[in-house]
Amino acid sequence: MRQPNSLFVNCRAATLTGPDYGLIDDAAIAVTPDGILWVGPRSDIPAAVATFPQTDLGGRLVTPALIDCHTHVVHGGNRAGEFEMRLKGASYEEVARAGGGIVSTVRATRAAREEDLIASTLPRVDAMIAEGVAVIEIKSGYGLDIETELRMLRAARRIGELRPVEVHTTFLGAHAAPADYKGREDAYIEEICLPALRAAHAEGLVDAVDGFCEGIAFTPAQIARVFDAAQALGLPVKLHAEQLSNLGGAALAARYGALSADHLEYLDEAGVKAMAEAGSVAVILPGAFYTLRETKAPPIELLRAHGVPMAVATDMNPGSSPMCSPLLAMNMACTLFRMTPEEALMGATRHAARALGLADRGTIVPGNRADLAVWNLEHPAELAYRIGFNPLHQRIIGGRS
Amino acid sequence: MRQPNSLFVNCRAATLTGPDYGLIDDAAIAVTPDGILWVGPRSDIPAAVATFPQTDLGGRLVTPALIDCHTHVVHGGNRAGEFEMRLKGASYEEVARAGGGIVSTVRATRAAREEDLIASTLPRVDAMIAEGVAVIEIKSGYGLDIETELRMLRAARRIGELRPVEVHTTFLGAHAAPADYKGREDAYIEEICLPALRAAHAEGLVDAVDGFCEGIAFTPAQIARVFDAAQALGLPVKLHAEQLSNLGGAALAARYGALSADHLEYLDEAGVKAMAEAGSVAVILPGAFYTLRETKAPPIELLRAHGVPMAVATDMNPGSSPMCSPLLAMNMACTLFRMTPEEALMGATRHAARALGLADRGTIVPGNRADLAVWNLEHPAELAYRIGFNPLHQRIIGGRS
Ligand SMILES: [Zn+2]
Ligand SMILES: [Zn+2]
Repeated sequence: MRQPNSLFVNCRAATLTGPDYGLIDDAAIAVTPDGILWVGPRSDIPAAVATFPQTDLGGRLVTPALIDCHTHVVHGGNRAGEFEMRLKGASYEEVARAGGGIVSTVRATRAAREEDLIASTLPRVDAMIAEGVAVIEIKSGYGLDIETELRMLRAARRIGELRPVEVHTTFLGAHAAPADYKGREDAYIEEICLPALRAAHAEGLVDAVDGFCEGIAFTPAQIARVFDAAQALGLPVKLHAEQLSNLGGAALAARYGALSADHLEYLDEAGVKAMAEAGSVAVILPGAFYTLRETKAPPIELLRAHGVPMAVATDMNPGSSPMCSPLLAMNMACTLFRMTPEEALMGATRHAARALGLADRGTIVPGNRADLAVWNLEHPAELAYRIGFNPLHQRIIGGRS
Repeated sequence: MRQPNSLFVNCRAATLTGPDYGLIDDAAIAVTPDGILWVGPRSDIPAAVATFPQTDLGGRLVTPALIDCHTHVVHGGNRAGEFEMRLKGASYEEVARAGGGIVSTVRATRAAREEDLIASTLPRVDAMIAEGVAVIEIKSGYGLDIETELRMLRAARRIGELRPVEVHTTFLGAHAAPADYKGREDAYIEEICLPALRAAHAEGLVDAVDGFCEGIAFTPAQIARVFDAAQALGLPVKLHAEQLSNLGGAALAARYGALSADHLEYLDEAGVKAMAEAGSVAVILPGAFYTLRETKAPPIELLRAHGVPMAVATDMNPGSSPMCSPLLAMNMACTLFRMTPEEALMGATRHAARALGLADRGTIVPGNRADLAVWNLEHPAELAYRIGFNPLHQRIIGGRS
């Protein structure tokens, strides 16, 4: 059964349609089964929607529902032991000798059945939903073999069926070379990554293709090989780029018309310009910067000056960002990177939608999906201001509250 | 009606009784109306408690309930507007001209009735309780007049009646001089702070006395005046010390046998030694360090070397630490200050109890109150490892689940 028409009244709406919050005090939002039909001041409600059944939102703040556009939330195990070892003084080598690092997550993920992955992931996804998230991107990349990469993506798809959240899957076979392919990254791309991509695509498991372009991962040439394959399959691309050094990853991604380039701490102006021309979104991931105690922030002012849309995401992953809170990512984007609360909210809604290639959400505008978050707040700046506090009153998904 | 005896079984207990977690796998915890009667491996349950009604904790992790030993959680208004102004490029002066800074919180707090303060504080306290907190310290200090200082403390006491949490109140009249006493701090101490302290004490509203010893607040001599008055009333003291500079506040507090000195970024070895000799707790407050983007961390290694117990708290306040999550404070203590997950957990339980002068909680040991937190976790290191994720299954307060 589709939901009936409804008219949400007595709220303050942050529509995010303009260059700013697009605040409407004492707003009304009319919703039909096809999405948002009308939004404006309550005093201007058109006759056509005035008869819709009304829901009083108690004067609360309404924003577009949040979108977490970069996560590795599906994974086996956790890295708390490694976190503790490091803080007790162990070196990276000692951690590696003890089986730590990404290989420990690959081991745990390979050992997990699909239902194990789902069970361990659901509490993390539930935490995101509880903060008003309606869409979550989920990457593969801890299998690094064909079977496990597909299992991760199947688990991600299944989570979108088990929970009231839309899951967008990203194939990240080019995340790292597994132990048996170290030093033979080209062979890994040909023998595992590309066959896994084609198999996952054939199964309908891939919405986009990602890679990790970095000295410790894959070269631009190897990433280009993956992107060529993605293009041949008609899949959009995105890239972990310029996180720890500048290899020109963002410009490479831009040449492929990437949806986004992500991290970007070492991005230079040439890369910013390439992104601006390609219309790629800069996905800002302060959780990893915080956890890794990095000191070089992404070039927010340059991105702003060149009009590159900035999204903000959790990067939820067991190693460098064990963070399940998009609101905290927004606070970190402000506190650590000096983004404004407005930019942070745009980054978790409107620009996050764009980073996923979704044209029909992220703002409160007629024609868009009626995915809304209702907050026990007066002003949207409070979303990024508060730390470790969830002010969500309710989500409204597809017009249903 | 007092609760009956009970025996909690099928759990992993982090007793925190030793120098480490004091982990007991497959533990049992026997509780009577008088507190914890016995804790140990399930295989060793004594006959005297074997007949207690059993509660199966499903293999979950049990720790002492958390204690947040430094908060300003009662206050009027919020400072999101100021947060946003600063991020849009306003200088401190411009923020001050727009009515920002602590004076805006003083204005909002003075304007709030007791019931307003309670209503705006409860969601923040509820967030803390939801993370397993059983005891919250709450300071005055945003009234800076006699009437409002008392009203804040009354609101704090009332919150302890309205919610299943024990509230410890701290008089912080010496937080800042109000506008009409700027440059006349001595007069403020004599005319407002000390009379307010005596009135609050007479009303039974004060468990401890605090001050802010800093160039922008009060001198050591002014703080000593407050501490003398506290001593005359038989009240323990604590101090905001060495946060932004080194005025010797921690050593001053130690001379008064302070429960704690708090913040301590600029503490030197002489101050550490004074605290060690006095048995004062170092209360570590990473939320303010994070929010203010400070770069000088407190001397964790010196505190460790001299055996000063370290507590960890949220410092929940609307200006420099709008953070309601003790778990996030633990993560920040590790990530930003390199405390270990073990120290962070001790800091939010055992040493936090000591910072409040509470000898009967913070560890799982016979004789202590049966205030426990049950977590959906395998290992206590996960508490500080995760970011923006609440793994609490339930609290057990006074033996009641
Ligand atoms: Zn990532
Ligand atoms: Zn404080």
